[in-house]
Amino acid sequence: MILCDCGNTNIKFYDFNILRTEEVSEKLNFPDEKFFYVNVNSSLDSIFEKNLNAINLSPYINIKTKYKGLGIDRQVLCNYLEDGIIVDAGSAITIDLMDKGEHKGGYILPGLTAYQKSFLTVSNKLQTKLKPTNIDIIPQNTDEALSCGVIKSIVLLIKSLGKKKIYLTGGDANILKEYFEDILVDKYLIFKAMREIIKEKYLGL
Amino acid sequence: MILCDCGNTNIKFYDFNILRTEEVSEKLNFPDEKFFYVNVNSSLDSIFEKNLNAINLSPYINIKTKYKGLGIDRQVLCNYLEDGIIVDAGSAITIDLMDKGEHKGGYILPGLTAYQKSFLTVSNKLQTKLKPTNIDIIPQNTDEALSCGVIKSIVLLIKSLGKKKIYLTGGDANILKEYFEDILVDKYLIFKAMREIIKEKYLGL
Repeated sequence: MILCDCGNTNIKFYDFNILRTEEVSEKLNFPDEKFFYVNVNSSLDSIFEKNLNAINLSPYINIKTKYKGLGIDRQVLCNYLEDGIIVDAGSAITIDLMDKGEHKGGYILPGLTAYQKSFLTVSNKLQTKLKPTNIDIIPQNTDEALSCGVIKSIVLLIKSLGKKKIYLTGGDANILKEYFEDILVDKYLIFKAMREIIKEKYLGL
Repeated sequence: MILCDCGNTNIKFYDFNILRTEEVSEKLNFPDEKFFYVNVNSSLDSIFEKNLNAINLSPYINIKTKYKGLGIDRQVLCNYLEDGIIVDAGSAITIDLMDKGEHKGGYILPGLTAYQKSFLTVSNKLQTKLKPTNIDIIPQNTDEALSCGVIKSIVLLIKSLGKKKIYLTGGDANILKEYFEDILVDKYLIFKAMREIIKEKYLGL
C-alpha cells in the first residue's frame, strides 16, 4: 500500500519502510500502482485528480471540530489520537489540540526555515541557521537571540496548551523535541494516521 | 535639535514635536543643519559619514552588557532605563532585559510584517493581516490561528522574562500593547533616549 503526503514544499511517498521525498513541482513522479494521498497544495489538485492511480483520502476523514479550514494533513493527524497536542513542524508549524476525541482548535506559526528567511528580509545581519539552544538562559549574541527567540516562543506557545502528551512530526521535529518531556516523535506519523483511516473508513476493517 | 533614527526599513527625523519618516533609500533627504543620528543599516554608513551635518551618537553610548553585537538602537533604548523590559516592535521585534542598570541579554523575532510575509512564502492560503486578537481562547479558523499564534508566542516570550515594567516602542506597539498590564508605550522612546545621551555624554550636562 503506497501512501502519499503532499505538502507545500515536499511530496512524500511511503511504502511500508521505503520513503521517497521530492520537491513539489508540476511534474510529479507518481507510482505505477494505486496509492492513497492527502494534498494541501491546491495548485496540484487537478494533477492528482487526473491520475487514475491516485485515491484521495479526504472524503473518508471527518473529525469533530468547530475549526473552519483545517488543512487535510492536520485532520488526518488529529483523527489519529483521542487526546494530546499534535505539532507538525514543517514548512509551517501547526499546533492542534485534541481533547476526548474532539479537535479544540489550533495555531499556525512559520516553519523554522520560513523564520530564517524572514530574518533576511529584515537585515542581512540577521543571517543564521536556527539550531537547538538552551532556552533557559538569556541570549548573549545575535545567533543566540535568533535561535532562542524563535524556539522559546514556539515552545512556550505549545506549553500554554497544558500538560498533554505532545505528538511531534515534520522535518524540524528533531530540533523541537528536546524541549518537552511527555513526547512522541515520529516523522512517519501522518502515514500511520493515513493507514488507520484507510483501514477503518475505506476498507471498513 | 534634530534627531535621526535610521532603521532597516524607515528613517525617522525628530525635531521636538515634528516627526518625518521616509523609506530608507540611497537618496536620503538630510536636514540642512546639524543633527544627531543612530543608524543600524550598515549599507548607509558611508552616506551618513560623508554628510557634514550628521553627528554619529554611537561613540557616546556605552552600556554595561556581556551581549556581543547589540544594535546601536537597542543600546540607546537600554541606556534609557535602569530596570525593565524594552520591546521594539519594528521590522524585527527586539526584546531586551535591563536589571539594575545592566543589560542582561535579549531576543530577536521577526517583526509582524515579516511574519505576515513569511506565511506567504509557505502557502497562499496563509494570507492574513495580523491583528489584535483574544489570546486566551484557542483559534477556530486560519486567520485566528495566524494572528493568535504569532501574537501569543511573542507575548509569552516577553512575559517569560518576569514581572518587570514593559517599555514598548516601534511601529507595531499599538498591536502588542494590550497584552500587558505594567506598560509604557511611546513611539518616540528612541528620541527621548537619544536626548538623554546627548545631554549627559555629548554636552556633559
